[in-house]
Amino acid sequence: MGKYKRADRIAVISMTLCNDPCKLYSLGFFAEMFDTAKSTISEDIEIVGSALAQNGGGTIVTVTGAAGGVKYLPIPGRAQVDAFVNKLCGEISQRGRLMVGDYVYTVDLLEDPRYAARIGEILALPYNRSNMPDFVITIETKGIPVALMTARALGVPLIVCRRGIKPLYGSLITTNYISGSTKEIETMSLPKRAIRSGQRGLIIDDYMRAGGSIRGIKEMMAEFGAMVVGVGVVMATAEPKEKMIDEYMSLVTLDEIDEENGLIKASNGNYGDYL
Amino acid sequence: MGKYKRADRIAVISMTLCNDPCKLYSLGFFAEMFDTAKSTISEDIEIVGSALAQNGGGTIVTVTGAAGGVKYLPIPGRAQVDAFVNKLCGEISQRGRLMVGDYVYTVDLLEDPRYAARIGEILALPYNRSNMPDFVITIETKGIPVALMTARALGVPLIVCRRGIKPLYGSLITTNYISGSTKEIETMSLPKRAIRSGQRGLIIDDYMRAGGSIRGIKEMMAEFGAMVVGVGVVMATAEPKEKMIDEYMSLVTLDEIDEENGLIKASNGNYGDYL
Repeated sequence: MGKYKRADRIAVISMTLCNDPCKLYSLGFFAEMFDTAKSTISEDIEIVGSALAQNGGGTIVTVTGAAGGVKYLPIPGRAQVDAFVNKLCGEISQRGRLMVGDYVYTVDLLEDPRYAARIGEILALPYNRSNMPDFVITIETKGIPVALMTARALGVPLIVCRRGIKPLYGSLITTNYISGSTKEIETMSLPKRAIRSGQRGLIIDDYMRAGGSIRGIKEMMAEFGAMVVGVGVVMATAEPKEKMIDEYMSLVTLDEIDEENGLIKASNGNYGDYL
Repeated sequence: MGKYKRADRIAVISMTLCNDPCKLYSLGFFAEMFDTAKSTISEDIEIVGSALAQNGGGTIVTVTGAAGGVKYLPIPGRAQVDAFVNKLCGEISQRGRLMVGDYVYTVDLLEDPRYAARIGEILALPYNRSNMPDFVITIETKGIPVALMTARALGVPLIVCRRGIKPLYGSLITTNYISGSTKEIETMSLPKRAIRSGQRGLIIDDYMRAGGSIRGIKEMMAEFGAMVVGVGVVMATAEPKEKMIDEYMSLVTLDEIDEENGLIKASNGNYGDYL
């Protein structure tokens, strides 16, 4: 490895931090990589941090002490968040997304890695500086991409509750919940080894109507002795007003359904209260 | 926005490119951001590119012409790929992962965003310079995180085939396949609007035994008039040797199952042939 100039080091440090959000890198790691002094790396990182602070693309956090180091948090600014949510509302309100049963077609958005990544960064915002969870949890299927990207933004694993009983997973914990779409009692399951008692989980889902699935996930977590640090959803319907859970952050509210014209009115959710 | 120094610009350019793999940014975009000349930005980007080339963290590609610009491709070097796959084999071979029916418990790895991201980068490798797909396609559930991260590394959307018939998705295309675990004929479905005729798709899944699900996805794509550019899986079993599909790239081969001791022998898959 040749001698690096400051600009070279900054390019590599920026990319390394950015590729692994929330992962703590010691100054020694970079000092060794570039065969230079920790004090030089420390100056490099200060430059990266202030450039990002000026630009709004995220934050560099320094953790002091023997086990210390630096990490990158993908923290979009409030203006970026609002602009993105406005765009999301515009997309969702487009003609042709309203299906039978007032269901809204959004998989093309939820499964787009760019949308999912930005949604994940926003849903992670209330938790990446304090109240950090040990894991993100969701229920299959449509919420998995945004839940994974939320977990990525927080540097924690994702846990996916399965619908029904999965006999191949060894010992399971199961719980029942009321499905929002079928109104029937359904079962969800998780391997017993998935969560340890005392761990803290952030519940993420794509869509909430009455909140039955999310209440199911909460009950599942209680069975494991795990704590809920929060609930975040991409979309929540305005009706029913009374949800089965008390607190949740939403990016988009689905206000009104105009079945005659096949349109849905989408507006900014309550996320502002959490930022 | 204040005046930026070179080191500041390089930090922000690196982070911006890295946050959105395969997205093409024009030089004008950065020139405007920093209120400077395109030639200056061009020099900055050359520095970022050569620092990365020296370090092995990825590649900066310059696209010339009026619609040109630069993009970041997350291209791990061969040594990094081998080291990661070795680690993955070690994890999979650990005691306690072998379940009944020779099923291997891997959701803790597949749902970890760091593992999923690196797996996605590797599965994307044969396709990010040429033979680029229009989308990545998988079937729910366990393969979704790695398929999403493959799509992210390629800068294309993900499409998730659903098991069974999803009545809420509007008009559907359905196809049948033989499930590897139940040996029964199952149905998968996709909304008619999900794929356009002539589009090119990369099939990604977490696990392949005989290849029934993947053949199902291939048949599904044929129904849409879409082309398969390739197949990539995280793990493939050595047995049966005869698969229902001809060509696939795998990271890990599950060689032998030692039921008495609850162990599985995992070795490096055939990915070397594709890199």
